[in-house]
Formats: sequence, C-alpha cells, structure tokens
Amino acid sequence: MIEPSLPSDREPIADAARSVGVFTEEEIRTIYELFDDYVRDLASGYNFLTFRDDGQVLGFACWGPTPLTEGTHDLYWICAHQTALGKGVGAVLFQRVEEECREVGGRLLVIWTSSAKGYETARRFYARMGCAQDGRIRDFYTPGEDLLVFSKRL
Amino acid sequence: MIEPSLPSDREPIADAARSVGVFTEEEIRTIYELFDDYVRDLASGYNFLTFRDDGQVLGFACWGPTPLTEGTHDLYWICAHQTALGKGVGAVLFQRVEEECREVGGRLLVIWTSSAKGYETARRFYARMGCAQDGRIRDFYTPGEDLLVFSKRL
Repeated sequence: MIEPSLPSDREPIADAARSVGVFTEEEIRTIYELFDDYVRDLASGYNFLTFRDDGQVLGFACWGPTPLTEGTHDLYWICAHQTALGKGVGAVLFQRVEEECREVGGRLLVIWTSSAKGYETARRFYARMGCAQDGRIRDFYTPGEDLLVFSKRL
Repeated sequence: MIEPSLPSDREPIADAARSVGVFTEEEIRTIYELFDDYVRDLASGYNFLTFRDDGQVLGFACWGPTPLTEGTHDLYWICAHQTALGKGVGAVLFQRVEEECREVGGRLLVIWTSSAKGYETARRFYARMGCAQDGRIRDFYTPGEDLLVFSKRL
C-alpha cells in the first residue's frame, strides 16, 4: 500500500496536498520542485512515498537527510487526501518514514510547521506520533504566524 | 569598508571562514556553493557582504529571505578573520545585515547555530547583538551537538 512514489504520482500528490485546504500555491509549487528533484535524481536528498489504495493516491510523505547533520532527517511533507481523513493514512505513512530513516542510520526526525489555525490537526497528529515540541519562533512565517519545531527520536 | 562581495572575494571569504577553525570542510563547501549562486544569479536569494580594510578581506556575512515566509531573513554566515578578532568586524557586519534586511521590508532575522564548544564565541556574539534564543533541538547535528535557534526583531 505504501511504496516509493512513481513519476506519475506527481499530480495526484499535488491534488492530495491541495485537498487539505491549508497550503498556499507557493507551497504547492515547492512540492512540485521537490518531487521533480526526486524523480530526476535519486541522490537529490528528497524521498517520496505514496499511500495507494485500489490505484488511488490517498496520501504521501516527503523526507530526506538534513544537510550538515549526521543521522537527522527532515520530514518535509506528510499529507492525507481530504477524502481519506480518519483512516489512519497519515499514521501509517509516518511510521514508514520512521522505519526508512532508521534503516539508513537515522537518529532524529525533525518537523517544521506553522502555528496557524489550519495546522492544528497536523500539530495534534505530530504529538500523537510521539513528537516533542522543541521550539517556537514567533512571527516567523508572517506577523502572528509562528514556526514550531517538532522532533522525534528514532 | 562594507560592500557587496566581489567575485574575486571567493577565496578570501573561504579563508576567513577556515581561519576560525570550527567549520568542517563540508561547511566550507557550502559557503562556496552559496557564493557561486550569489555570483551567478542576483535573484539567488543569497546575499554576501565583504568587510574590507586596506584591500584585505577581514570578514563577510551571507543572508537572504527565508523561503515561504514574509519578511523573515536567515543569517546563513557571519564571520571575521581570526587575525581581525576583537576589532568589531562582526558587530559592524551584523548591523549592516540588519539595515539591508529592513530596507527590503525584513521584520525578523533568524540564526541557526550549534551548541558545540567551538561556537561559544558565536553564541555570545548573537546575544550581544540583541538576539533571543527561541529553541534547541537536542542532538540535531550529531549526538551531543544541538541546534540552537536565535532571532532578532528588526
């Protein structure tokens, strides 16, 4: 059900991200950029996994080794399609990312997210997955929207 | 004395960074990469300033707008040559970066640094420049070496 994303998952992945309703078009463009890097170059540092059910893309995750660290990985994106919420897609993806990181010697998974209201579900999700909040930079994204840093030991 | 870096500052800037004695060769390579991006493309998002005295490069700073934010800037590097320590090169560079950020609507300057012993001088410097510590991710760089996040409102 979970496998490395195929090049043809490009649009379904962007659709899944759009369906959540919180990402800006600039953020969606970032997904395309990371995805294109991943497809073009296996050593790009970006890994994508697709959660597929009956041929449908229900979610995806994107992560990679954090530059200039030893054994730390960034979870850049993790996302379930709006129509698949509550089915545990995110949790299964998260656990798979943890496994894949461990397999390459990963010690720590780090997640950078926003304090905005639209990300409340995501924040609760990270806490449920066992992540701790390590810091907050006030007004990082925009005035009133903070950066929150979560991490999980692997 | 402070001006946008010239392409010919590439090696003197790397020398200044090496003279500090705390950066790994991988980190020095990162400086070359950012510098080459800066020289190649003014819209690269990386800006370099050189502190020059009597033709000698005594220090440099590199910063740029933080992707996906409005008005936040990253101070990627700030460095005085070992032979110029205690002359206020860093402080003057820091203030100039603050000014340049403000000029383009910057609200917040963010610095990501290490908890390692070799960075103690840097940490004291950021505190002296009025930065607050916003977070710490334990074991981020290597086991025992944490990421510290500082920021300053502009």
